[in-house]
Amino acid sequence: MHDAGDRNHRILFTLRPAGTPVPESFGADTTAVPTPGPGQFLSRTLYLSLDPLYGKAMRASADEAVRLNPGDVMSGETVSQVLESRHPDYRAGEYVVARNGWQQFALSSGQGVRRLDPNRAPISTALGVLGLPGLVGYTGLIYMAEPRPGQTVLVSDATGPIGCTAGQAARIVGARAVGIAASAEKCEYAVSQLGFAACIHDHAGDLGADIHTACPEGVDVYFDNSGGEVLAKAMQFLAPNARVILCGMSEAYNMDVSPPGPSLETVLTSRAILRGIVVQDHLHRLPELEKVAGSWIRAGLFRYREDITEGLASAPEAFCRLMRGESFGKVLVRVAPEHL
Amino acid sequence: MHDAGDRNHRILFTLRPAGTPVPESFGADTTAVPTPGPGQFLSRTLYLSLDPLYGKAMRASADEAVRLNPGDVMSGETVSQVLESRHPDYRAGEYVVARNGWQQFALSSGQGVRRLDPNRAPISTALGVLGLPGLVGYTGLIYMAEPRPGQTVLVSDATGPIGCTAGQAARIVGARAVGIAASAEKCEYAVSQLGFAACIHDHAGDLGADIHTACPEGVDVYFDNSGGEVLAKAMQFLAPNARVILCGMSEAYNMDVSPPGPSLETVLTSRAILRGIVVQDHLHRLPELEKVAGSWIRAGLFRYREDITEGLASAPEAFCRLMRGESFGKVLVRVAPEHL
Repeated sequence: MHDAGDRNHRILFTLRPAGTPVPESFGADTTAVPTPGPGQFLSRTLYLSLDPLYGKAMRASADEAVRLNPGDVMSGETVSQVLESRHPDYRAGEYVVARNGWQQFALSSGQGVRRLDPNRAPISTALGVLGLPGLVGYTGLIYMAEPRPGQTVLVSDATGPIGCTAGQAARIVGARAVGIAASAEKCEYAVSQLGFAACIHDHAGDLGADIHTACPEGVDVYFDNSGGEVLAKAMQFLAPNARVILCGMSEAYNMDVSPPGPSLETVLTSRAILRGIVVQDHLHRLPELEKVAGSWIRAGLFRYREDITEGLASAPEAFCRLMRGESFGKVLVRVAPEHL
Repeated sequence: MHDAGDRNHRILFTLRPAGTPVPESFGADTTAVPTPGPGQFLSRTLYLSLDPLYGKAMRASADEAVRLNPGDVMSGETVSQVLESRHPDYRAGEYVVARNGWQQFALSSGQGVRRLDPNRAPISTALGVLGLPGLVGYTGLIYMAEPRPGQTVLVSDATGPIGCTAGQAARIVGARAVGIAASAEKCEYAVSQLGFAACIHDHAGDLGADIHTACPEGVDVYFDNSGGEVLAKAMQFLAPNARVILCGMSEAYNMDVSPPGPSLETVLTSRAILRGIVVQDHLHRLPELEKVAGSWIRAGLFRYREDITEGLASAPEAFCRLMRGESFGKVLVRVAPEHL
């Protein structure tokens, strides 16, 4: 499945950025393609997922368990195809979701790997709306926020894989979804393609006034994918008994010291509940997500957008764009074609 | 019950303070003692409760429903005795919890009034540990925070009526109560009299290090009566699945503009839940509080402290001390002796 002459191109983390990552934060090298030992398999990376969390992992202040150190291969979830296996559960040709990181080939012991059915949905969705981002959006909305029909669900970063899942799930269960997104183009897409009742461009005007106009009866659920100023503003318009789901503090991922948070006065006055979601707690619902959101996709009820760049060498620039908030949809790198 | 020559001394709110209230924020006047009309009763104020919330009500930024305007009689909950009644449910001589405000006599239609059994506990407790402050501490701890035996419950303003109720309830249900208080004297009282396992003087040293030492396994429940810096620090030490109960933002009550809140990163990483408590939602549990905490008091398991000043004229200075954080225990003004 791979030529004897193949080499393994890798992208390394080389320099901690002072703020938002820059191309100079990365380097590259080439090694031999490794050979699987007993209980291992070798896979080729097809799609690499880029995720804002790795911006946090690049910082000196990150938890040791996830912190990237200069010289490390950049980490990341991937859709990969098994090339050669000495693992009893995986065979050559199978598709898997693994954590190959930013490289063309990797070995795996099978830990944390899940098998992928390529006939169910496009395999790239396993890194987006049918993968961990979708899982966070779905379970955070359905099991933690629990919107009732007719309630208003405000979602920031509405066109990303988490936000589009939370917002469309809200709409499908009868709530009124209102988005927040970073450009007029994204807002237009959120309304016309994702079915948000309204979408607010968060850099365009007076965010507070715009939330108030779009959510005249208050915000019953705020699904936060941004933190910072957007979170602070959204919390000024909580309806009684509102639920705020914290799902990422991307604004803080470019900083070494966490900034202060929003005033919590409305948590008191609105009897709101504020909770964080950690995807690891919800992995048991991945089959449910695949079944439910998969059926929504097939029924044409649920859409998603991918921002795909070609070739591993494009990853650093694509990641920097993501961390500057300029990407649109789930950010993926196509490292190798699906069918060789 | 009152002499024909009696006059009604009142204390008025006269001037919005720029920051913490000062004696010049108040004025006084004297009116005739009013006469009850049909469906009304006249009562004499025995104890007046001073509460930090009224500092907030003095601000121009307060909600219209609660805002005090210059010329208003200062509002406040009171233990009062019925003097003369044309109300079918109340008779002269009965004790009630009413909202007479800062005056010696007031009329009532009975709305929001509850009758008080003077034989059950000292009547002043109906404004403290067996009244709304106790109710917030008890229901917030037992029904919202739900500590398990052996868990660590951190309580700020531990010697006030809310904090002492939350902390002692935590201890009685088998949790480990750790207090935070504003003086060494209060901390000594919290440990020796209220049974806190430890108490941290929040102005004495490095608050974060002190919380870490007193709560080496993390904070399972943080019961917040302060907001601000204490809240921000406590949230850095949350244990997994911690519950944070917000019960007052006294630090913010002297300000017109709400300050930012704590970083919410630990809500995410600790899977914490953060909720506010609003006493009005829990009024149906007042009989339970009276029964349960009343029995704890009679059994010697539960103590409380009152900071009582004599005479209505002492109220402004006592209130200013309260708002400066200098009072110790439930702050009450004895407006008239219990037994005339």
